Amino acid sequence: MSDTETRPLRFAPHLERLPPSAIREICRLVAQPDLRSLAGGWPDPAVFPTDDVRRILDEDLPRHGHQALQYGVTEGLIELREILAREAAREGLRLTVDHLMLTHGSQQAMDLTAAAFLDPGDVAIVGCPTYMGGTGAFATVGAEVVGVPVDAEGIDPDALHRRLRTLAARRRPARVVYVIPNFQNPDGSVLPLERRRALVELADRYGFVILEDDPYGALRYDGAPLPSLAALDTAGRVILARSFSKTISPGLRMAWVAAAPPVIRQLGVIKQYRDSCSGNLAQQVVLGFFRRGLFEPYLERLRVHYRAKRDRMLEALDRHFPRTARWNRATGGFFVWITLPDDLDGEALLQEALRRKVAFVPGRPFHCDGSGRNTIRLSFSQSDDASIDAAVADLGAALRDLAARPRPSLAPVPGTKPKTRTAAKRGPRRAAGPARKPKTRPGRKPAGRRR
Amino acid sequence: MSDTETRPLRFAPHLERLPPSAIREICRLVAQPDLRSLAGGWPDPAVFPTDDVRRILDEDLPRHGHQALQYGVTEGLIELREILAREAAREGLRLTVDHLMLTHGSQQAMDLTAAAFLDPGDVAIVGCPTYMGGTGAFATVGAEVVGVPVDAEGIDPDALHRRLRTLAARRRPARVVYVIPNFQNPDGSVLPLERRRALVELADRYGFVILEDDPYGALRYDGAPLPSLAALDTAGRVILARSFSKTISPGLRMAWVAAAPPVIRQLGVIKQYRDSCSGNLAQQVVLGFFRRGLFEPYLERLRVHYRAKRDRMLEALDRHFPRTARWNRATGGFFVWITLPDDLDGEALLQEALRRKVAFVPGRPFHCDGSGRNTIRLSFSQSDDASIDAAVADLGAALRDLAARPRPSLAPVPGTKPKTRTAAKRGPRRAAGPARKPKTRPGRKPAGRRR
Repeated sequence: MSDTETRPLRFAPHLERLPPSAIREICRLVAQPDLRSLAGGWPDPAVFPTDDVRRILDEDLPRHGHQALQYGVTEGLIELREILAREAAREGLRLTVDHLMLTHGSQQAMDLTAAAFLDPGDVAIVGCPTYMGGTGAFATVGAEVVGVPVDAEGIDPDALHRRLRTLAARRRPARVVYVIPNFQNPDGSVLPLERRRALVELADRYGFVILEDDPYGALRYDGAPLPSLAALDTAGRVILARSFSKTISPGLRMAWVAAAPPVIRQLGVIKQYRDSCSGNLAQQVVLGFFRRGLFEPYLERLRVHYRAKRDRMLEALDRHFPRTARWNRATGGFFVWITLPDDLDGEALLQEALRRKVAFVPGRPFHCDGSGRNTIRLSFSQSDDASIDAAVADLGAALRDLAARPRPSLAPVPGTKPKTRTAAKRGPRRAAGPARKPKTRPGRKPAGRRR
Repeated sequence: MSDTETRPLRFAPHLERLPPSAIREICRLVAQPDLRSLAGGWPDPAVFPTDDVRRILDEDLPRHGHQALQYGVTEGLIELREILAREAAREGLRLTVDHLMLTHGSQQAMDLTAAAFLDPGDVAIVGCPTYMGGTGAFATVGAEVVGVPVDAEGIDPDALHRRLRTLAARRRPARVVYVIPNFQNPDGSVLPLERRRALVELADRYGFVILEDDPYGALRYDGAPLPSLAALDTAGRVILARSFSKTISPGLRMAWVAAAPPVIRQLGVIKQYRDSCSGNLAQQVVLGFFRRGLFEPYLERLRVHYRAKRDRMLEALDRHFPRTARWNRATGGFFVWITLPDDLDGEALLQEALRRKVAFVPGRPFHCDGSGRNTIRLSFSQSDDASIDAAVADLGAALRDLAARPRPSLAPVPGTKPKTRTAAKRGPRRAAGPARKPKTRPGRKPAGRRR
């Protein structure tokens, strides 16, 4: 084993399609200790249920150690799946244990869905913007990722329909559509009921599978919950992924996926060859949470905790940000999504902000077509009240400095605007339809709610 | 969400290459409570370090909970990688933290290696027989799996060399060769030093990567350890996977992979989109084991425990099995590999054994070319002394019954013997070379060592 090679190593050519790993870059940003980070979508360690986890293991390992430390069936502990099925019934989801599988984070649900439904070259559709974990999972199995515009209310079903028609006419039917209906990462959009219905109908009509990724749904700060796409689906075309990473804790790497039993069986065969089964020790912790009735009260505590942070960030933005920027209200989840004036670049702002020891995530990596240059994502999940205000103040100053500086025009020159990667590869007509419209949602000025 | 579909779901066509999931079938066998199972390669819960795991979490969670419950870098906790690098130095492996990554079981190391080096249709070589987790990982990414004969001393470098030459001449170079050098699952073979050297030289000459899977290396009952292929490699072509599943416990889903830093970086990019990162809670347990100096003494305890079981099984075989069967000595690991007379079928024996409430694993699923019909794998890891003897006695009786029964000849008819799946698909010349030789190792009569 050495660092040198007498013949160069050859990685699989399909990996050239992989997008640069923006998540890893974000992790590196967050890891710098002297930075005030508004970057990562990581939960706040201040509310980790460390004592509960410790007590659950202390009490349950003596009796359940033989199970908690052993291999398990690929789909996960049956007692835990029974509990999850009962919990799901409360929101109108009729599931049995055969509809459920535990996974190593919802990232694994994305990967398994990608592997189950996508051959290399098959088409997967994602929102533009959306979380790059979905985009990356599809690209990793060699799929072609196509973007569809997301506006203030999430993915646009009309634009999706047009794209589906075009793809079908070219005999390149979409196989998977990736949707984050609640408080989408990065833009916080919530898909209204009629759009949820429209997506489920399109799935049945065009024969694709919807991957409904819902890591933030339990962290709602305003308004009433909407039914999941899975609950609206009568054709077994929705794969719902829910995570415990933003609730109990990410260190468990535990999420669950719900789908029609034949889909779960197929995902299970693939998972067998991916990592055999999900960790029983971590499942034992989740099981302990539910058995003791700790989960729902803990969620309520998290909502209060993160709602207050959200309010602090909206107040700070009102106070420190120029009127030329627009942002969402963040009715749930961890993120405020900001649209800067058209001629400002989020990546240039990041450089400016890093000099002031503030980090955030530029919006462009969330756009599979390379647009969204004038967007940024701020996370309020990890900072305390005082540091939110100070960091947003410094970021506002950085923004004013950047706006005041003379700079080359960033307005798109006709004929040179960014295309999707696909379009760039396959020629100008390929994905030109939606690329003609601006991809970024218009944003809204928040009502400036104070508490 | 429903069990019915108005349009049938279409899974990705490349999944048709997936072998039937024999591991899942084995798990189902093991799960039947009234069976005496000699089937699964699961460790014995009687020696799970439940108290140690409980104490480590109880003591370390208050201080390290912020880390143990949070996301981590994809490669794993740096403190743990530092310890693993120091441990590896004791066996002549010169590693830094950049050579190491924690994975969810060594199955994940197989999957990541497959994804990093194999495009659909690329060739991966496996031993015949070998563990089907490796074969399945390669097949899942769409690779073509080619078998090379394994004899009593593991994979045969001369046969491998011939196959490599043939493949290279057909411009279908092998990209990955999968090897389990120590106490291979299923046949217990140990690759001698000169074969290890030969494989590493072939890797450099033919430009492939060796995936060295070593879950059982620490469980050696006789003789002295041999250097790993990774320690012999000077060209950065070996990827070594070591698991904590057969030592600390499978419920952690924790293993590590060592490779040249550029390989680790590539595996990390893929893992990011597979499951983001490995569970920090489970890593904290492993870290606690090493920090307290518990690991090495625990290994010694395991060796004593499993060596005694191995001895009981060899004694029982001596006592109860007909002289027409041959088996290995199992100098480490969990398995005794038995070659039945040519005209007996392991799957027919299983049916006979199940009637007597004894389960084991027929050898055929370990052979990617469908051979090995007269082989079976017995595991001694989970049964206690008395049940090993009784189960082997009943199995011996089943074998005598089966042998005494009139049956159609199973001897191969010229021109109709099983081919590799590849050969069957691509025509008679395709993989005919090694298929002409019997694939199964001759086996040895054990010395009947008593303790």
